[in-house]
Amino acid sequence: MHKMVKKIVVLGSTGSIGQQTLEVVQNFPEQYTVVGLAGGKNTALLLRQITQFRPLLAYSAADCKLPSVTSFATMEEMASHPDVDLVVIATSGKEGLGPLLAAIRAGKRIALANKEALVMAGEVIIRGAKKHKAMLIPIDSEHSGIWQCLQGETRGLSRVILTASGGPFYHLTKEQLAKVTIEDALRHPTWKMGRKITVDSATLMNKGLEVIEAHWLFSLPFDRIDIVCHPQSIVHSLVEFIDGSIKAQLSLPDMRLPIQYALSYPQRLQNPQLPHFDIAKVHSLDFEQIDYSRFPCLQLAIEAGKKGGTYPAVLCAADEIAVNLFLNRQISFLAISEIIEKTLSLHQPISTPTLEDILAADEWARENALSFAQA
Amino acid sequence: MHKMVKKIVVLGSTGSIGQQTLEVVQNFPEQYTVVGLAGGKNTALLLRQITQFRPLLAYSAADCKLPSVTSFATMEEMASHPDVDLVVIATSGKEGLGPLLAAIRAGKRIALANKEALVMAGEVIIRGAKKHKAMLIPIDSEHSGIWQCLQGETRGLSRVILTASGGPFYHLTKEQLAKVTIEDALRHPTWKMGRKITVDSATLMNKGLEVIEAHWLFSLPFDRIDIVCHPQSIVHSLVEFIDGSIKAQLSLPDMRLPIQYALSYPQRLQNPQLPHFDIAKVHSLDFEQIDYSRFPCLQLAIEAGKKGGTYPAVLCAADEIAVNLFLNRQISFLAISEIIEKTLSLHQPISTPTLEDILAADEWARENALSFAQA
Repeated sequence: MHKMVKKIVVLGSTGSIGQQTLEVVQNFPEQYTVVGLAGGKNTALLLRQITQFRPLLAYSAADCKLPSVTSFATMEEMASHPDVDLVVIATSGKEGLGPLLAAIRAGKRIALANKEALVMAGEVIIRGAKKHKAMLIPIDSEHSGIWQCLQGETRGLSRVILTASGGPFYHLTKEQLAKVTIEDALRHPTWKMGRKITVDSATLMNKGLEVIEAHWLFSLPFDRIDIVCHPQSIVHSLVEFIDGSIKAQLSLPDMRLPIQYALSYPQRLQNPQLPHFDIAKVHSLDFEQIDYSRFPCLQLAIEAGKKGGTYPAVLCAADEIAVNLFLNRQISFLAISEIIEKTLSLHQPISTPTLEDILAADEWARENALSFAQA
Repeated sequence: MHKMVKKIVVLGSTGSIGQQTLEVVQNFPEQYTVVGLAGGKNTALLLRQITQFRPLLAYSAADCKLPSVTSFATMEEMASHPDVDLVVIATSGKEGLGPLLAAIRAGKRIALANKEALVMAGEVIIRGAKKHKAMLIPIDSEHSGIWQCLQGETRGLSRVILTASGGPFYHLTKEQLAKVTIEDALRHPTWKMGRKITVDSATLMNKGLEVIEAHWLFSLPFDRIDIVCHPQSIVHSLVEFIDGSIKAQLSLPDMRLPIQYALSYPQRLQNPQLPHFDIAKVHSLDFEQIDYSRFPCLQLAIEAGKKGGTYPAVLCAADEIAVNLFLNRQISFLAISEIIEKTLSLHQPISTPTLEDILAADEWARENALSFAQA
């Protein structure tokens, strides 16, 4: 059987998701070819990736000399390049927004890991995707789980339930939370991820962003998106239908599975590298009700999502600033939510924002968040 | 929107599944109309059902005078009646085989609860269903769970995992098992069912029959059908795909859900009568490896399934006789498996049996099982 080789670009190839994407690609040389790579400040890794995958196009956020076979291109150019079949957006924070919108305007199939882009500009993105027939496939494990459970079930969805590992601090008291260090926050119990998302997991901001992401990806009102704490990170999501039947997606916590599914969708590929989960050996899958009271970031995110307009962009921007300050040891763990809350409370929202409005709100929020921190 | 009313017949309407089918039908008077009912010895209940649903056709296994609006018909006649859209086969044991084959020859959509029919004559049934374009939709909760998880996933199935509650005796020793009574056996921890299937659940024969059922329904070799013990009966089945992703179907143990899904498939219907399961309140879903050694019926069933030919028919017939003897207090609990084992061991199998061969094997097995019990 003749197989079409999918031409892909990986934006954010030097990050955690980017590296794992290339690992998956490497397992299927007959299925995928890398035509573009975009990396961040780790130019040494980017150059190694370029040497290995020999993409036509590459972008580096830092200064670096590309090998002669590879031409420089911006992330937007790669995302909308006519030869590209699939755009993997594995950047983080705000930087993925421009390339995401470029891919959408070009009607691409997009594997999306950069949740902040969707949270900031959900309405603009979803409207654009419909208009240009672009397809957004989630890479986030929870959303991949929902996406998988919804295959063949176009109607009858009642609600989705995202699982939350709870992060490293789920059972700490407020007093204990006041004293946690960066090292504590970066020690996630089940997932190995980048620094920003690991801190977001510790504050549960990450789960709040995922709720907003689910709202846009699956066209669901917020009251039909629930969260349940599941410390083992084996059940990634559950989907309930109107007849009360629930489907769940399970796998060991390994991002290569949702990445691979986003690449191969609607097919599934056998990959001996991926770990297999044996239900008979687990003894029990544990669940508990989520405690919103100790994790203000989660509440702030859901409120911002419900209010809509420019609020989610402000949420993301303030969070990015605050997490950075925490990672630079400039503020405490509890100050993260305080800075976000203060920024949100002073924001003058715009209800149906254009992209310009969103970017202006983002700018405003960054400046303000920083000034509160320095105050 | 104009809705097509589905015309259904319910064979075995006075049994547990039959009654629950009518309960579901009653909730959707605009979706379903009952055109035929066939009941067993409980003629009082059958007559009440006829009065309520006013079917055109009815059959009673016992002598009973039908109301004038309803004509007598055999189960085969109802199952193949040109006006019927869906045949619910909720009989038990061997009696469903004839009607099932009649429905298949008529190319009907069939909701199947009578697992013994499929176990006895799997090859004949599946071949017939393909030839006549009949559709078999499982009602058994485990198989309904698999069926649901496979929607939209036509390729890439790796294996299925049936859950087993373990029945009332799962943690008893062999010595304790020797002393259990009918009353103990009929006290199933999670499911309310008929007497035959409840005893089959206590011996785990029921799970063995389900493995054979899954083999035929999903065209799977036996080494790709696993069982895991799950005492809560909330996860009904799990399906693993070639990429290692697993989907599970969850709901509270209530047969009305799989019955309703078999009626409404591929749609789902909102039914406030059905209980909803709240994952946040369960705390844990428990699993353990199945212990084949204490439950010989399970092993006998899987072996008979693997050997194929007339063995599964002999298994079913010997089990039906042995369970009946146990329910009549004529043999002990452990004698059930002994009788089945002895019958199987003396059987002269036919490898690709016709229906006649199957019925002859069934007859032979009944006579022999009975004679061993009396010896």
